[in-house]
Amino acid sequence: MNIISKDVIAAENAKQAHALASDYAHLGEQLARRGIDIDAVKRRVANYAVAVPSWGVGTGGTRFARFPGEGEPRNIFDKLEDCAVIHELTRATPTVSLHIPWDKVSDLSALKEKGAALGLGFDAMNSNTFSDAPQQEHSYKYGSLSHANAATRRQAIEHNIECIEIGRKLGSKALTVWIGDGTNFPGQADFTRSFERYLEAMKAIYKHLPDDWRIFSEHKMYEPAFYSTVVQDWGTNYLIAKELGDKAYCLVDLGHHAPNVNIEMIVARLIQFGKLGGFHFNDSKYGDDDLDTGSIDPYRLFLVFNELVNAEERKAEGFAPAHMLDQSHNVTDPIESLMRSATEVCRAYAQGLLVDRAALAGYQEEHDALMASETLKTAFRTDVEPILAMARHEGGGAIDPVATYRAAGYRAKVAADRPAVAGGSGGIV
Amino acid sequence: MNIISKDVIAAENAKQAHALASDYAHLGEQLARRGIDIDAVKRRVANYAVAVPSWGVGTGGTRFARFPGEGEPRNIFDKLEDCAVIHELTRATPTVSLHIPWDKVSDLSALKEKGAALGLGFDAMNSNTFSDAPQQEHSYKYGSLSHANAATRRQAIEHNIECIEIGRKLGSKALTVWIGDGTNFPGQADFTRSFERYLEAMKAIYKHLPDDWRIFSEHKMYEPAFYSTVVQDWGTNYLIAKELGDKAYCLVDLGHHAPNVNIEMIVARLIQFGKLGGFHFNDSKYGDDDLDTGSIDPYRLFLVFNELVNAEERKAEGFAPAHMLDQSHNVTDPIESLMRSATEVCRAYAQGLLVDRAALAGYQEEHDALMASETLKTAFRTDVEPILAMARHEGGGAIDPVATYRAAGYRAKVAADRPAVAGGSGGIV
Amino acid sequence: MNIISKDVIAAENAKQAHALASDYAHLGEQLARRGIDIDAVKRRVANYAVAVPSWGVGTGGTRFARFPGEGEPRNIFDKLEDCAVIHELTRATPTVSLHIPWDKVSDLSALKEKGAALGLGFDAMNSNTFSDAPQQEHSYKYGSLSHANAATRRQAIEHNIECIEIGRKLGSKALTVWIGDGTNFPGQADFTRSFERYLEAMKAIYKHLPDDWRIFSEHKMYEPAFYSTVVQDWGTNYLIAKELGDKAYCLVDLGHHAPNVNIEMIVARLIQFGKLGGFHFNDSKYGDDDLDTGSIDPYRLFLVFNELVNAEERKAEGFAPAHMLDQSHNVTDPIESLMRSATEVCRAYAQGLLVDRAALAGYQEEHDALMASETLKTAFRTDVEPILAMARHEGGGAIDPVATYRAAGYRAKVAADRPAVAGGSGGIV
Amino acid sequence: MNIISKDVIAAENAKQAHALASDYAHLGEQLARRGIDIDAVKRRVANYAVAVPSWGVGTGGTRFARFPGEGEPRNIFDKLEDCAVIHELTRATPTVSLHIPWDKVSDLSALKEKGAALGLGFDAMNSNTFSDAPQQEHSYKYGSLSHANAATRRQAIEHNIECIEIGRKLGSKALTVWIGDGTNFPGQADFTRSFERYLEAMKAIYKHLPDDWRIFSEHKMYEPAFYSTVVQDWGTNYLIAKELGDKAYCLVDLGHHAPNVNIEMIVARLIQFGKLGGFHFNDSKYGDDDLDTGSIDPYRLFLVFNELVNAEERKAEGFAPAHMLDQSHNVTDPIESLMRSATEVCRAYAQGLLVDRAALAGYQEEHDALMASETLKTAFRTDVEPILAMARHEGGGAIDPVATYRAAGYRAKVAADRPAVAGGSGGIV
Repeated sequence: MNIISKDVIAAENAKQAHALASDYAHLGEQLARRGIDIDAVKRRVANYAVAVPSWGVGTGGTRFARFPGEGEPRNIFDKLEDCAVIHELTRATPTVSLHIPWDKVSDLSALKEKGAALGLGFDAMNSNTFSDAPQQEHSYKYGSLSHANAATRRQAIEHNIECIEIGRKLGSKALTVWIGDGTNFPGQADFTRSFERYLEAMKAIYKHLPDDWRIFSEHKMYEPAFYSTVVQDWGTNYLIAKELGDKAYCLVDLGHHAPNVNIEMIVARLIQFGKLGGFHFNDSKYGDDDLDTGSIDPYRLFLVFNELVNAEERKAEGFAPAHMLDQSHNVTDPIESLMRSATEVCRAYAQGLLVDRAALAGYQEEHDALMASETLKTAFRTDVEPILAMARHEGGGAIDPVATYRAAGYRAKVAADRPAVAGGSGGIV
Repeated sequence: MNIISKDVIAAENAKQAHALASDYAHLGEQLARRGIDIDAVKRRVANYAVAVPSWGVGTGGTRFARFPGEGEPRNIFDKLEDCAVIHELTRATPTVSLHIPWDKVSDLSALKEKGAALGLGFDAMNSNTFSDAPQQEHSYKYGSLSHANAATRRQAIEHNIECIEIGRKLGSKALTVWIGDGTNFPGQADFTRSFERYLEAMKAIYKHLPDDWRIFSEHKMYEPAFYSTVVQDWGTNYLIAKELGDKAYCLVDLGHHAPNVNIEMIVARLIQFGKLGGFHFNDSKYGDDDLDTGSIDPYRLFLVFNELVNAEERKAEGFAPAHMLDQSHNVTDPIESLMRSATEVCRAYAQGLLVDRAALAGYQEEHDALMASETLKTAFRTDVEPILAMARHEGGGAIDPVATYRAAGYRAKVAADRPAVAGGSGGIV
Repeated sequence: MNIISKDVIAAENAKQAHALASDYAHLGEQLARRGIDIDAVKRRVANYAVAVPSWGVGTGGTRFARFPGEGEPRNIFDKLEDCAVIHELTRATPTVSLHIPWDKVSDLSALKEKGAALGLGFDAMNSNTFSDAPQQEHSYKYGSLSHANAATRRQAIEHNIECIEIGRKLGSKALTVWIGDGTNFPGQADFTRSFERYLEAMKAIYKHLPDDWRIFSEHKMYEPAFYSTVVQDWGTNYLIAKELGDKAYCLVDLGHHAPNVNIEMIVARLIQFGKLGGFHFNDSKYGDDDLDTGSIDPYRLFLVFNELVNAEERKAEGFAPAHMLDQSHNVTDPIESLMRSATEVCRAYAQGLLVDRAALAGYQEEHDALMASETLKTAFRTDVEPILAMARHEGGGAIDPVATYRAAGYRAKVAADRPAVAGGSGGIV
Repeated sequence: MNIISKDVIAAENAKQAHALASDYAHLGEQLARRGIDIDAVKRRVANYAVAVPSWGVGTGGTRFARFPGEGEPRNIFDKLEDCAVIHELTRATPTVSLHIPWDKVSDLSALKEKGAALGLGFDAMNSNTFSDAPQQEHSYKYGSLSHANAATRRQAIEHNIECIEIGRKLGSKALTVWIGDGTNFPGQADFTRSFERYLEAMKAIYKHLPDDWRIFSEHKMYEPAFYSTVVQDWGTNYLIAKELGDKAYCLVDLGHHAPNVNIEMIVARLIQFGKLGGFHFNDSKYGDDDLDTGSIDPYRLFLVFNELVNAEERKAEGFAPAHMLDQSHNVTDPIESLMRSATEVCRAYAQGLLVDRAALAGYQEEHDALMASETLKTAFRTDVEPILAMARHEGGGAIDPVATYRAAGYRAKVAADRPAVAGGSGGIV
């Protein structure tokens, strides 16, 4: 059962099919000259999948304001429908990542069935200890898993265990832990004691992790804490995964690093040492801007995927990263932004597959920096849109997801059903 | 009429007075050796004043969460009382800067009288077009003064004019304009057309500016817009002030610059070209963190004041900057944070007064980089706390403002009167 | 007279001509669907030109070391030959920008004739006051145009005037002034006095500027000075151009900004206020890394050209920027790096020409941030290599400049003639 | 035997002794009020030592230019004399850190004796594989310990082993390895293979490390490589130390991090995991600026020492970091810069000792962020110069090292003996 009518998709695709066939054929000819079989690339792209975060389908906000759009989802059932639309059109997002407590429901079977009916599975669970839920006994104002008080830490541990329990029932296989813990002033906390407490708390959670699950810790340089964070970078994140054990891995959010940091190198290091758990994809110019993936620096995204394809092709040990989008949509329709971001990660993956790795290795051996660099640029410059579009088309999706989504009038339809949400100031005032 | 009982202040001061007298005397001796009259410095410090922002006395938040404290002020009258406490104890904050619409009241005379009763005047007015007020006709989701639609710009212009009108009645002499306008994606707006519209709108506001008023435009690199902002840096800010006219000046918020930028140099340039309007003081490690002034990089704060004292002493033309704190207090009692920040700007000013400017000029002429640098460091290293404390003490304030505030039990008292505020998630979810 | 044999070029082109014809035809078909005439784009690309810096053909270095390559040019005559090779193969670099004193010769007519024989003209002259020349009377250790001593400033002024004189004889029409002046420590110099002296010195140079010349001042955030520079950013640079007069413009080097700065917006502002003089193109990840243009963030380069094409198409008043490469080649053959960088600026220009500006303007009006952003991405994603290659091919250049250069064996030939240069430590030890 | 006449020191000290006694007495009184014994602090400061780098006594340079000063040391014997001057006046720098090959001599006993005669020992040895030495067989242009060619790696390994051998004869107990290896372009090298080769090479060196030695690896984000470095941050550095074994530790250079990074937290993490080897102290505003320690952000330096004193006082396991200055002096007399930098690290250490750690721990437990932060600021604000000066005075050094150095006329004396060095361009041209 499709939410977006298959007729609408077919009608829109019909407008583009001829041009696509021509472009695909010509690109196939070009790639054949480079010794690449376009159909093989297309098949790998068709199999690629990235999870959508349940919170991503609502309009985001900043500390200054939130400006909701029309038809904001009211609950996780609405959110699943929005997510289904994304997958129906892009064929790239078969799973949804939930956030507890927001996505908590009394009837988990109903949720699971809803997902199944929409063709959606459940990706990593996400706990939340960076804000206080109503009626929560202990506040996270001064931290959660690293809090100085044992009772607060215990509460945060139990929340994470609950997330695992919910996830088990839904078929999830991973827990992602990002905390806002940190400080705003030098001296506010003892770095060492905070981290000891964090590790102890994570070990308590880890004990409850089913054998076939993984736990992902996520580092972030700053925000909401503005002097220090407990899990500030990949170095600390690696120490965590190492201390916890074999089911513990590091999650990389592209926007959580210091200015100018070489992220693709961090990815390579974590792969090399068997601790890359997965990604939160997005893009950013300044900090954790949570912009649409690939919208600011598409070449950086490609360089990350270049490492991923490299690891995939050399069958790096233990390499099985989880891919998820994590964005905040303040000025666009969230469904549109997530569709194009799903497309962008597919694009970067496809470009990564085009890299002539044998030639690259040769240039590296010969210190031919220019040709090595051009080998990557050649793959990046290739307009792989025909491959992506053909994969979508053949999979029952849309050649042009955004145009088709607009043609289907989905936003207007849900706006009629879902009540308008008031905007207002953000946290600051 | 003091909110904090003079008896409490006196009792607390009594505990410290002896040590203070001794420290002041010895510092006087030290400074005399350098040819400095400590009493003269103290007098200038006593005359120094910095405005407190009305929004600063409430607990701030991030896009992730807001964790209110006890006794949050309910309205501008509560806020004025909190501000009065700050001034009573520090003697450095005789004025309050209002933010419209939050501080809008039906009876402006009552507000003015309340201020007068508390010994407080009204500093620069602040407009708000970065969030939508309830019942507002046109949304600022896509901009305000630079919005593509003329009606939205008109609404934002009228709001600013209203701020001037309110300010006139309260005795304010300046309007500060900070807008959140900008874009999240390349292409979202045309840089040039946006800036043309912004300039046109500002000119419309400027027309309504009374002759004895000044208008301050404030630049900011990013946030809430994450790809570009309309007034991104001091270069653009200077162009604005120049285009508008003689009553237009640039406002510098210490947290609104790119990483590593030399802010004191920007201050010097704006002074040199007659366009330094004033400051929003705070401190930051990453972005616009809005932390307590001087808490992260106190030497940078000193270097800014070194430029200010330099300009003051050489009587730079048109030099009369407005000083204001602008911070967000997420983990501290806002009154305490504002008191120490007021103290920190006094400290930086006092240290700036200790710079041996004749010696410095000599070293600069001789290219004696080491001694020039040490001349500044010597002033900075001087522990001027006895000067600050004596100025407060003699002015009727507290030798130790925070200890006295705590001894007075003000927070508990207002917590009893003012209802608890629920926390919750920030704009993001 | 070609340095690279036309036979070699023809032989190499023959290998690629068939594929190029096919790719060009298909791209033409694709662009036609978008309403774009590929031949018109090709013609504009063919007319595009970027200057090569004479110093760029030698191997660069860092303060840690310099590792020369083979066949390093011995003097400006050798350098011109290397530059000619670049132009012969790319057809995009018809002019050379000289650096005095390094390129100073006793017989300027011989130099001019050499250029003419090689088909090269002379672009902007570059003065050097950031290092001391042998036998120089006053050292620039503590500055040049802003130096505290009038005699040193005078020497620096006269050097710049000499550069103008040399340039006049060679047919240059512009002087680029970049100085290393600045400080390493707070207090080392007075910001205001330094800038006053700089302005005074620049005015003295400006007086000698012929009527049909322009003078470009270049800002840079840091290096070689590490606390402050006299011309630190575009704000100061704008003030300079404004103070000097109508023949004074700002030069933008892509690597001279603070981290995260939105450079394309600076470009837009300078165009809007009639002061964009030109560019030093290169790329960077950290600071003034001087890497090959487009090698690190090709989308940023495109966004800059998007502004340039926008200005060109709307015929912005006084818009006539000078384009120059400015790179340091430490690990590549400089000729190869300059050829690919020339190609990259052509590519960004071609992509800029493909932007559907009418559609973009529409999306901007409607606040359709997603489609506005995609409009730029669509142009950027187009693989315009067939256009660039066809323009080169038809202009007598190489379809694949690097492959052709290697096939011609130029580096080995000059290595036989030009003596090997010893490497060694850089400035630091 | 003193190089600086004891009479000169005594005469200069005589001018200051009276004021110092008064200041010391008053500071003692102040500290006593806080429960601190000033003499105990002074004794710990007197025992503190920081090594001086042999290369630091020569004038540095940038890639743009080098401007030598007068009396540049000609060789390691001259350098030792300059280092002796620093120690004689500051009493804080009893050891020198050598750099091979520059400090290599045929007669090591003579060098050791010279050191002994001057009262100087030998700190960590430093290898150099970031530039090519004359007659070196394999170039380091494309790397050293991570080079693709085994023979080049072997040469670099042997050079490091030679450094150990030299160090053994001189009484050193540590080897510091910093390499310039990295890339300028994406694709130039395979991150994983490069790091594998690096680890293999380091293991080969480690095998030759005497049992009572330590090896320090040093991370750096960029420069001389501008896209990636092999040992880019503390995360990679930790992996190295872990892979190598118990004698391997991480060295932290304060200028080698990304913008905004919280360095004191990295220090705390390395202490917690037993891998902090030591420091290269300096200061910076932009990148690896190598400015005088404490000259740009003295509070950051204090925060680092706050972690060090914290670890010292809680007797953290395996905590024994090596302290060394590492600066480049472009505009100051290197001896003066090193003296003041030695003083600055003493200052930060003394301030660290003044932190009321019991009170701090209490505030941390109670989430009293403001008072915790003020506890650090109180220690930092204390003008400890009387403690430092008294420690120097009582140790036979100078109350005012720079003034005494100038009074002694040392620079003029050596300028008479040591020939002037020509300046010139740096590596770039």
